[in-house]
Amino acid sequence: MATDTLAINTIRTLAPDVVQKANSGHPGAPMGCAPMAHVLFSRFISANPQNPHWINRDRFVLSNGHGCVLQYVMLHLLGYDLSMEDLQSFRQVGSKTPGHPEANHGTPGIEVTTGPLGQGIASAVGLAIAEAHLAAEFNQPGFDLVDNYTYCILGDGCMQEGVQAEAASLAGHLQLGKLIALYDDNHIQIDGDTALGFTENVRLRYESYGWHVQFVENGDSDIAALTNAIEAAKKVTDKPSLIQVRTTIGYGSKNEGEEKVHGAPLGEPDIAQVKTKFGFSPDQKFNVPQQVYDFYGKVAAKGKDAEAQWNQLFDRYAAQFPQLAADFKRRLAKKLPDNIKDLLPTYKPSDPPVATRKLSETVLNKIAPQLPELIGGSADLTGSNLTRWKGAEDFQPPSTKLGSYKGRYIRFGVREHAMAAICNGISAYGALIPFGATFFNFISYALGAVRLSALSKHHVLYIMTHDSIGLGEDGPTHQPIETLACMRAMPNILNFRPADGNEVSGSYLVSLEAHDRPSVLILTRQNLPQLAGSSIEAVRKGAYVLEDAPNPSVILVATGSEVSLAVDTAAQLASENIAARVVSMPCWELFEEQSVEYQQSVFLDGVPVVSIEAMSTFGWQKWAHLTCGIDTFGASGPYKDLYKKFGLVPDVIAAKAKKLIAFYKDRKPENKIQRI
Amino acid sequence: MATDTLAINTIRTLAPDVVQKANSGHPGAPMGCAPMAHVLFSRFISANPQNPHWINRDRFVLSNGHGCVLQYVMLHLLGYDLSMEDLQSFRQVGSKTPGHPEANHGTPGIEVTTGPLGQGIASAVGLAIAEAHLAAEFNQPGFDLVDNYTYCILGDGCMQEGVQAEAASLAGHLQLGKLIALYDDNHIQIDGDTALGFTENVRLRYESYGWHVQFVENGDSDIAALTNAIEAAKKVTDKPSLIQVRTTIGYGSKNEGEEKVHGAPLGEPDIAQVKTKFGFSPDQKFNVPQQVYDFYGKVAAKGKDAEAQWNQLFDRYAAQFPQLAADFKRRLAKKLPDNIKDLLPTYKPSDPPVATRKLSETVLNKIAPQLPELIGGSADLTGSNLTRWKGAEDFQPPSTKLGSYKGRYIRFGVREHAMAAICNGISAYGALIPFGATFFNFISYALGAVRLSALSKHHVLYIMTHDSIGLGEDGPTHQPIETLACMRAMPNILNFRPADGNEVSGSYLVSLEAHDRPSVLILTRQNLPQLAGSSIEAVRKGAYVLEDAPNPSVILVATGSEVSLAVDTAAQLASENIAARVVSMPCWELFEEQSVEYQQSVFLDGVPVVSIEAMSTFGWQKWAHLTCGIDTFGASGPYKDLYKKFGLVPDVIAAKAKKLIAFYKDRKPENKIQRI
Repeated sequence: MATDTLAINTIRTLAPDVVQKANSGHPGAPMGCAPMAHVLFSRFISANPQNPHWINRDRFVLSNGHGCVLQYVMLHLLGYDLSMEDLQSFRQVGSKTPGHPEANHGTPGIEVTTGPLGQGIASAVGLAIAEAHLAAEFNQPGFDLVDNYTYCILGDGCMQEGVQAEAASLAGHLQLGKLIALYDDNHIQIDGDTALGFTENVRLRYESYGWHVQFVENGDSDIAALTNAIEAAKKVTDKPSLIQVRTTIGYGSKNEGEEKVHGAPLGEPDIAQVKTKFGFSPDQKFNVPQQVYDFYGKVAAKGKDAEAQWNQLFDRYAAQFPQLAADFKRRLAKKLPDNIKDLLPTYKPSDPPVATRKLSETVLNKIAPQLPELIGGSADLTGSNLTRWKGAEDFQPPSTKLGSYKGRYIRFGVREHAMAAICNGISAYGALIPFGATFFNFISYALGAVRLSALSKHHVLYIMTHDSIGLGEDGPTHQPIETLACMRAMPNILNFRPADGNEVSGSYLVSLEAHDRPSVLILTRQNLPQLAGSSIEAVRKGAYVLEDAPNPSVILVATGSEVSLAVDTAAQLASENIAARVVSMPCWELFEEQSVEYQQSVFLDGVPVVSIEAMSTFGWQKWAHLTCGIDTFGASGPYKDLYKKFGLVPDVIAAKAKKLIAFYKDRKPENKIQRI
Repeated sequence: MATDTLAINTIRTLAPDVVQKANSGHPGAPMGCAPMAHVLFSRFISANPQNPHWINRDRFVLSNGHGCVLQYVMLHLLGYDLSMEDLQSFRQVGSKTPGHPEANHGTPGIEVTTGPLGQGIASAVGLAIAEAHLAAEFNQPGFDLVDNYTYCILGDGCMQEGVQAEAASLAGHLQLGKLIALYDDNHIQIDGDTALGFTENVRLRYESYGWHVQFVENGDSDIAALTNAIEAAKKVTDKPSLIQVRTTIGYGSKNEGEEKVHGAPLGEPDIAQVKTKFGFSPDQKFNVPQQVYDFYGKVAAKGKDAEAQWNQLFDRYAAQFPQLAADFKRRLAKKLPDNIKDLLPTYKPSDPPVATRKLSETVLNKIAPQLPELIGGSADLTGSNLTRWKGAEDFQPPSTKLGSYKGRYIRFGVREHAMAAICNGISAYGALIPFGATFFNFISYALGAVRLSALSKHHVLYIMTHDSIGLGEDGPTHQPIETLACMRAMPNILNFRPADGNEVSGSYLVSLEAHDRPSVLILTRQNLPQLAGSSIEAVRKGAYVLEDAPNPSVILVATGSEVSLAVDTAAQLASENIAARVVSMPCWELFEEQSVEYQQSVFLDGVPVVSIEAMSTFGWQKWAHLTCGIDTFGASGPYKDLYKKFGLVPDVIAAKAKKLIAFYKDRKPENKIQRI
């Protein structure tokens, strides 16, 4: 048997074995996509299985992540640290082969997390943006230091998702010629034939985006056509490429071409039938002919050589461009420039009131020139998010004359979901810290991807302005209520709601340092005073005593714009001889990570706590005995009117605090910090 | 001046006055879209301003909702209950003219909430689906009872959003010939020229979806071209229509055609200049020539006549088809069939364990045939969500031979966000109760629209299966953690996580009755036992004592799949002579609406509470002294292994409960119900 055929048949028999053993998973896509995966990995993808982190590797993304057995099998065959035992523990607790590919969770060769449909192709756009940018930044004549392709396989499900549409439209605009996507056009989705609800002309659509589009009619066995198409795609350098590949899902199964083979094990009799059909012994499980291992071993060796050659190139580059090389290495090591903290502005209470989005702009103006790894932009709210620093150049294809690939300011367009998924891809590439911006409320549009930032430990900054009813007249459609609770409930993400300039600086500092989790910077539209007692360093603790009084009768804890409200409330209480402590809590998650001793030094035993935050009170019962917030939707009006309408003014809160103090007159409030 | 011109100029001068008075808002879109709005409202839209609820009115959706002054001005000119004073209190607290159009908040003529971009066009698809379905269901030869068009204006922002792309693709498949969208192609978005990041060929894209596409080159003044295009669109009955209309944003302003006019008042000098240019007195504010009022008065009178004629048609229809007419009226009145509750299955503890998604299927099988207003489907997870009842017909264009417009099962495709926005549109139409289904985790893809379900008081059911780590092998990409906290923090939405068959039936009952808010039904993949003590009626209370013990030492509160775990834990504690009460809490929001007395009868004073829920513990501190849950991401593995891994097994929880009891040995735990 020809090696190509044998290799493809190996994938097509091994994949169902893996699914069968797990008694769970998706055999159909691996069997249908085996030829394109084989062609990609054997003829095109340059990567070193022994060093999956080599920066100039070609990237591969399986956007239809439910077909991950395909990817695991390929990684295994190529000699990545993914053994037959790993394949055999597919979908088991603690294995390297989880139910969908997870980046940064110990599986080598997984670039970005996929499974939630559409994310992979959108993140692939981010990988391609990163490549284009770093190439423009670092490459020198004769030194193509950064020079890799991004390959992506995606299916019908991805093709229906909005995040895919957003990302593909932007990729076309950006003329990302080194992005090559193979569309597994198998006409089957979970509900049945795509005729049920997906009858658009995908090729025409991608042409409308400005992609180079090809069609491979027989993706089940026409290796030459697949090879030729990918070669042709590589030759088109100013357009991303889509290759629509007609395949048969579950090719070889007795139910091939039907939805039955999509998401459940084939069953032993069908597997035996498949093996017989492909010339394999029906009785032998997990069978990889040595010829196939040998073949892929040679592919892997080529990848190893490629890296070795690249390393030599890099050494020569370093000799000739020592500063560039040092910067490249620093950034790959995720090390910030030493002086970042010194660049951050600090403020005195006598400084004028400023909106935290504006203070954020000041930080960006200070750090962006010194932090070349910072790249990002806004979902068409630049003038509102204030994310474009002075002197920023747009990331644009040179032909547009609007910028260049050297530019670091990305015009994402009104595409919040793709923005977040693209940031994931940029972060996954390495050597870059991406950020995306929109109104805080519209993080809800992007949540599918933001969640994957957190799950995949991507270092992404989300700069979210207009963070509450404080945005005023735009009204409840734009005013976050549940949003921060949602973000706080999400694991592995830091949510900062700074109260003034020092806290904005501190929030940036911690966000930039936290390279294994994303951060959300939640910023006001309206001006806020500079507070006495705030500092950059205090932000590290998550919450701290901003203003104290001896033997306080009550503690007011607040975040962001409500901290100054807490200060005003404390003043009002003081005028009535009631001592109140004010706690600023810019980052709930960091406070939770502090020692119980520290936490108890902030929330004193025996002193009742009032929380103040101009959004849902949901969750605040963790720290507070009484919560002040907004548990309905907001309203449209000037923001001061809204604060009054929702009772977020000193006299109303002071009255509530007094009621709380009276309530606990005869007994101690429960200590919220004590952990059982 | 010709009346058309005068009317358009009136809009173009009145809109900036409104924005200027509010000192906030978006004048550019109203000025640019004035001609198309005038043509639509004067020549095409059939509606009665005196009865904005007339069911057969043409629907109009302003998807670029930030341009809402345009809509408010049109409603005012047409004589809707929206006075000049209302226009003058634009964006003020309590006004009928909020910053973006809000459905069901007192502004007549607003069909769906817009502002969050892309939502309007997607909900317009829902409005058109509703029309097509109801026409197929109710119309009889000679009786076109339901026969209206859905018109939508959308801008560049909407065109970039994924939700728009998803909905447009589905609309093309569904051949919704009575949906006509006008694309305000003004080349300007907030960041500047669309050349910055939106260079796709929109017309080609819509053609790829199967839409009928036209182009009007001069949308600033070519009334005839606009009229002809809309007339041509109406003639194409088997395709939705897109009319790309080239306009100048802020037409008339000295900054026309620039982003400056997009989102801020023009300023008095520019407004004076605009008025002079259009032949209006520069000094007169809020000027509507009587000729214009008269003109629109005649349009309104035609609309009133149209309704009167329709009412006569309906009377004749009722005489000939009394049962259909009665059903139509019942549904318009949002009255459920009397026997719905009797249809709901009940269960005994001796009945076998069943997954709640399967129990949901049983409910759907029982009620769907008796509840003709129920319409909906799944985002391509029918076999997993189990949402297709026996005998269901697909909602499909007849030419596909896969169903008909009479069908009530919608194949949404993998388009979660559009699904939710479409459900909003269907609900907004009236006489229908829509539902959408996917895995619970992927409600995050749809959140932008789900939030608008809640804000707009739409009666939508979200059937969300695979609700926790209990889904097992698919792993953390698919396992909700933060999701339920997010939903609970959202105002005006009911979240049900039923524990067994009776609670599933009860959750459906309350969801169907709650016609002014959406509900989320959160259902397991895995089997759950039928519990002793559960009932349909108990769900109404939100939480209730499922199993009691005399003088309990601890209360275990749980939801969904963890209620049986609580029962098992209580049994284990009982074996150690520790009395535990078990509280099932299928709906947090309903429990919050109960009297304090009832709440205190569930969570007894002096008894510590342990919460058990296989997801984020965020928020549970409101009720519980100790929380058992998962504050990291999940993992991939068989679900029983996962429950063990995350400590959600009786012995671990019992040990924690005992620690809690010991902790409160010498003092009373704080009463969580007492409200200050």
